[in-house]
Amino acid sequence: MNQPVVVRNVEQPPADAIAALEHYGVTTVHEAQGRCGLLASYMRPIFPGATMAGPAVTVSLPPGDNLMIHVAVEVCRSGNILVVAPTSPCTDGYFGELLATSLRAHGVRGLVIDAGCRDIRALTEMRFPVWSRAISSQGTVKNTLGSVNIPVVCAGALVEAGDVIIADDVGVVVVKRAVASEVAAAAEQRVRKENETRERLARGELGLDIYGMRKKLTELGIKYL
Amino acid sequence: MNQPVVVRNVEQPPADAIAALEHYGVTTVHEAQGRCGLLASYMRPIFPGATMAGPAVTVSLPPGDNLMIHVAVEVCRSGNILVVAPTSPCTDGYFGELLATSLRAHGVRGLVIDAGCRDIRALTEMRFPVWSRAISSQGTVKNTLGSVNIPVVCAGALVEAGDVIIADDVGVVVVKRAVASEVAAAAEQRVRKENETRERLARGELGLDIYGMRKKLTELGIKYL
Amino acid sequence: MNQPVVVRNVEQPPADAIAALEHYGVTTVHEAQGRCGLLASYMRPIFPGATMAGPAVTVSLPPGDNLMIHVAVEVCRSGNILVVAPTSPCTDGYFGELLATSLRAHGVRGLVIDAGCRDIRALTEMRFPVWSRAISSQGTVKNTLGSVNIPVVCAGALVEAGDVIIADDVGVVVVKRAVASEVAAAAEQRVRKENETRERLARGELGLDIYGMRKKLTELGIKYL
Amino acid sequence: MNQPVVVRNVEQPPADAIAALEHYGVTTVHEAQGRCGLLASYMRPIFPGATMAGPAVTVSLPPGDNLMIHVAVEVCRSGNILVVAPTSPCTDGYFGELLATSLRAHGVRGLVIDAGCRDIRALTEMRFPVWSRAISSQGTVKNTLGSVNIPVVCAGALVEAGDVIIADDVGVVVVKRAVASEVAAAAEQRVRKENETRERLARGELGLDIYGMRKKLTELGIKYL
Amino acid sequence: MNQPVVVRNVEQPPADAIAALEHYGVTTVHEAQGRCGLLASYMRPIFPGATMAGPAVTVSLPPGDNLMIHVAVEVCRSGNILVVAPTSPCTDGYFGELLATSLRAHGVRGLVIDAGCRDIRALTEMRFPVWSRAISSQGTVKNTLGSVNIPVVCAGALVEAGDVIIADDVGVVVVKRAVASEVAAAAEQRVRKENETRERLARGELGLDIYGMRKKLTELGIKYL
Amino acid sequence: MNQPVVVRNVEQPPADAIAALEHYGVTTVHEAQGRCGLLASYMRPIFPGATMAGPAVTVSLPPGDNLMIHVAVEVCRSGNILVVAPTSPCTDGYFGELLATSLRAHGVRGLVIDAGCRDIRALTEMRFPVWSRAISSQGTVKNTLGSVNIPVVCAGALVEAGDVIIADDVGVVVVKRAVASEVAAAAEQRVRKENETRERLARGELGLDIYGMRKKLTELGIKYL
Repeated sequence: MNQPVVVRNVEQPPADAIAALEHYGVTTVHEAQGRCGLLASYMRPIFPGATMAGPAVTVSLPPGDNLMIHVAVEVCRSGNILVVAPTSPCTDGYFGELLATSLRAHGVRGLVIDAGCRDIRALTEMRFPVWSRAISSQGTVKNTLGSVNIPVVCAGALVEAGDVIIADDVGVVVVKRAVASEVAAAAEQRVRKENETRERLARGELGLDIYGMRKKLTELGIKYL
Repeated sequence: MNQPVVVRNVEQPPADAIAALEHYGVTTVHEAQGRCGLLASYMRPIFPGATMAGPAVTVSLPPGDNLMIHVAVEVCRSGNILVVAPTSPCTDGYFGELLATSLRAHGVRGLVIDAGCRDIRALTEMRFPVWSRAISSQGTVKNTLGSVNIPVVCAGALVEAGDVIIADDVGVVVVKRAVASEVAAAAEQRVRKENETRERLARGELGLDIYGMRKKLTELGIKYL
Repeated sequence: MNQPVVVRNVEQPPADAIAALEHYGVTTVHEAQGRCGLLASYMRPIFPGATMAGPAVTVSLPPGDNLMIHVAVEVCRSGNILVVAPTSPCTDGYFGELLATSLRAHGVRGLVIDAGCRDIRALTEMRFPVWSRAISSQGTVKNTLGSVNIPVVCAGALVEAGDVIIADDVGVVVVKRAVASEVAAAAEQRVRKENETRERLARGELGLDIYGMRKKLTELGIKYL
Repeated sequence: MNQPVVVRNVEQPPADAIAALEHYGVTTVHEAQGRCGLLASYMRPIFPGATMAGPAVTVSLPPGDNLMIHVAVEVCRSGNILVVAPTSPCTDGYFGELLATSLRAHGVRGLVIDAGCRDIRALTEMRFPVWSRAISSQGTVKNTLGSVNIPVVCAGALVEAGDVIIADDVGVVVVKRAVASEVAAAAEQRVRKENETRERLARGELGLDIYGMRKKLTELGIKYL
Repeated sequence: MNQPVVVRNVEQPPADAIAALEHYGVTTVHEAQGRCGLLASYMRPIFPGATMAGPAVTVSLPPGDNLMIHVAVEVCRSGNILVVAPTSPCTDGYFGELLATSLRAHGVRGLVIDAGCRDIRALTEMRFPVWSRAISSQGTVKNTLGSVNIPVVCAGALVEAGDVIIADDVGVVVVKRAVASEVAAAAEQRVRKENETRERLARGELGLDIYGMRKKLTELGIKYL
Repeated sequence: MNQPVVVRNVEQPPADAIAALEHYGVTTVHEAQGRCGLLASYMRPIFPGATMAGPAVTVSLPPGDNLMIHVAVEVCRSGNILVVAPTSPCTDGYFGELLATSLRAHGVRGLVIDAGCRDIRALTEMRFPVWSRAISSQGTVKNTLGSVNIPVVCAGALVEAGDVIIADDVGVVVVKRAVASEVAAAAEQRVRKENETRERLARGELGLDIYGMRKKLTELGIKYL
């Protein structure tokens, strides 16, 4: 049953897979791994143009209480991404400039939080990337335990410590640690194929012909007037 | 009763009316036509500063299935705007860079979709304008028929093929094809009148006096303390 | 009981307190006054980077009717901020470029409206700051009375005429007129303390140590694995 | 362009089609007409167990103003259903016991309103059925014109005067006047076929076999573990 | 500035006014006091048919922490109604059968909570009435202070300790303590007038005639087709 | 990576644990297992008073397509509960009377679906319990594969095949198969303790005293006025 714990040591995914997944971006990675692992579309970056990828440090905590983020800092490694999920819906501003300063001092790449974020201007100036469901000045207390590095459901997706988080302008996706390299390879293949398709479409060819959909349309009974 | 169809030939509105409506913008056009035809305020542009106007090609399709967008490309003409309405609420990313490449190759101006859009960075770089209710990487399948160029309700507004769509930073409005020129003329008049009002307001005159509202206020029983 | 009134004379808060509160910003002020007075997080600026602070002129009005905004202009003073709250939820575009022109001519700093705003491009070009819950072209009528400078609940916060409104990228907060100077002083203290903390965090010290939380964690029964 | 009007005479659908459509209910009718015409799922009955069907009298009106409902009463005929759509989103309680008393005195069957309803207890005691998006005591004014019996979009569906409205525990659907009899016949066929299927399913046969889906599953590449 | 406090002694409104306000119900009272004081329409009773009225004991507390409800029990008097408002949006189940047992033992009539409630079956069997924004099993902790009997904004309405809360099937309204008797008298008048109107409407007279609206319609420019 | 599969054999939890968990109900079970496993509060029963508990058969499927529910029927065992999660948000009516007839013929207890349900009247008459996020007549197609008995996130909670689902008036909770008996025992203990507390509260004792909270309040700095 559920007891507050902090898991210190987490197996990390291969660095080259992380770099490749960041390069291909959220949409391609999501497709390449069979359309799973996407966080809900209400998760938006606090400033445009940011991208990041890295292994997750997960935090499960109560509404309105950020004690466990402070606890999590200590177990973060360079290149990690913090993934924070409240145990019930909350838009409070759990996170701001001071915590970002602390995380950056420990090499953390950025934050994904299914709650609110504050100090937007300072975070933008620091270029510390955050994907959140809300922007809110409402502060939190530091009174109640939660857990670090246990499996969490964040914005509708299951995230385990050490899974790879990829985030960009479109949203956030999680890739299981064990398949990170495999997904990176599948993403590369997908991009190569899309490049060919893009050229044909740019020349005016129709998707109906490129994807061979005309026969299916006829079978389905389409009627042109 | 409702059967999947694709209507190929759609009467187009006059080109000069389209240009004028784009020039005057959504708010003025909406007012000029008697405050009808506005799409719901959750429809937002994927990048700031975009504007467009053009005749609608309408697409009715199922949740999570973009087969009919591929079908619609073939019946689009240069200058058209694609208007996509799922038959039930959906935030999936029906549309991305490849479809935009295809639409642009056929002269389409942009997209209005009561669902999700993906590939935001690439679409922004291409300057392909999209107004959507969500941003989401969640892809769609290509398995089920819908219809092209039938009347649809998109974000709460009735849109028929050949109606003029106008979109800018404030939102999206639809003008019936038959009254496009008449609405453009009314918009021009409205702007002329607003220019005079703006000057008077900028000099410090009060709307209460310019619009002659003081008598009405007294009749309604206003009380100054 | 509730009767439509316009209160002309409103006691104003000290100018130096207003300037200080704008300088410290929403998050710091909200914390400094004991975490009260925050408007709901759905209130967003119509363009990024805007800040403002000033004494509130409050407007209570019906859904879809902006008559009372026109009435309010006349009782605004230089430096004031208009705070508009409909009596039931509404996303209509009550406010646009013409009203902004009028308010600016009377020295008003900006607008906070728990409803919709339109003419986003023009307002951005004018740099007239607005925090709203929606962007919508839907216009309003001018038929029904409301009140000016009575206490209103705007986006979940109680605002009285003459209270100080502070708004920035994170949101909007209200400070009671009577405690404006006291809150400004508390904000200054808070910032000084945060500056020290920031330096220590940037050097890699942990919040757990700076805030002395380790003993509490042990008492709460945290378990490291 | 849009001008306030009241259309007095509306062609009515055949009475036997109305009775049949009420008998078959919303889900069956919606399927029988090819899955169109459904109102959004947020439209809920104010008390359980109510059903109704009848020709629509449509009302388009402003947020927070029910003047046009009073105007509409005069043009209602016995058996009609009032369909009320505000021009922008509104949850105000436009409708209560007094208006229900008036409508019933003129033979109106019930109300569908994309806004709020009040006096729930009295309406329940009267058994006057209402489908609404909200329950709210917030009253409305009677100051601004709208239109009666023009086409409206209500909860996402296009409704024209004289179309048949069918409502039950599941929701509300609209059937075009011209196809009411045809849809009723299709609904009857559908029910007959469902009765056979139900018996087979109740005996334990699988849908996979009854609908012949096994071959398709194999083609799609399903994998049993 | 804001400090956690518990105010023990609260001036109570007259008992006969409370009884009268409960008798007239939410809609009539809301109208009688000039359409103010209504809580947001998302506040719904956990079982149908409940009504209550009584002086408010207010509780301001953090998200996910119900410590202050326990504190509030001690300062409740017989006939009071507990009004609970979290400092940021929360749907947790702050309240269940055990707290209801405790409140009932101290004579409290019921609860209004801008958050979640649990133990619905037990509360229904006890007939302990609750109006809430959500139903949720998610429990709360007891770690952080808030305040009792300070002014709170609950579901968009300002409530002060000793104000009269009235709740029924339609929703919840608050009446300022000082005007409770005056509002009760106005409600009585309103009901008397409505009784006459109801009889005339039941006989088929039109509201257009009873309220004398035809002249206004003509002036506004209505057009009958 | 994610491929459509159907897992036929699922280890089942002990029958006595299931019976006990149903007996104790959602709130008690949720508390007893350390406050995890709760589905989002928007999941509501389609009729009041229903309860159920049983091992989950999970279904992951696309928006607007219920093919995989038909597939799942074949692998259900007597006493199972179907748990259906679309891969993106959807309110379509995936489920109605015919599928309920089929499931009941195979001994299935009920349904939990993070989407819409239809045929409410028939399902209520059959007493087939369903917890859903919406009620909608909008039908689905049967064109696209998903998976059966893989781990799914349903309404924010991770559910694996064979986990115990408990549902009642308050909501839905999931208990991991491996700890079902342990949680049932903890629930029993909890209920015993609550019975004692209830008696003391009913006699008028305060929670402040029963739970020994007065010392903590003093330490936290509460101030009585």
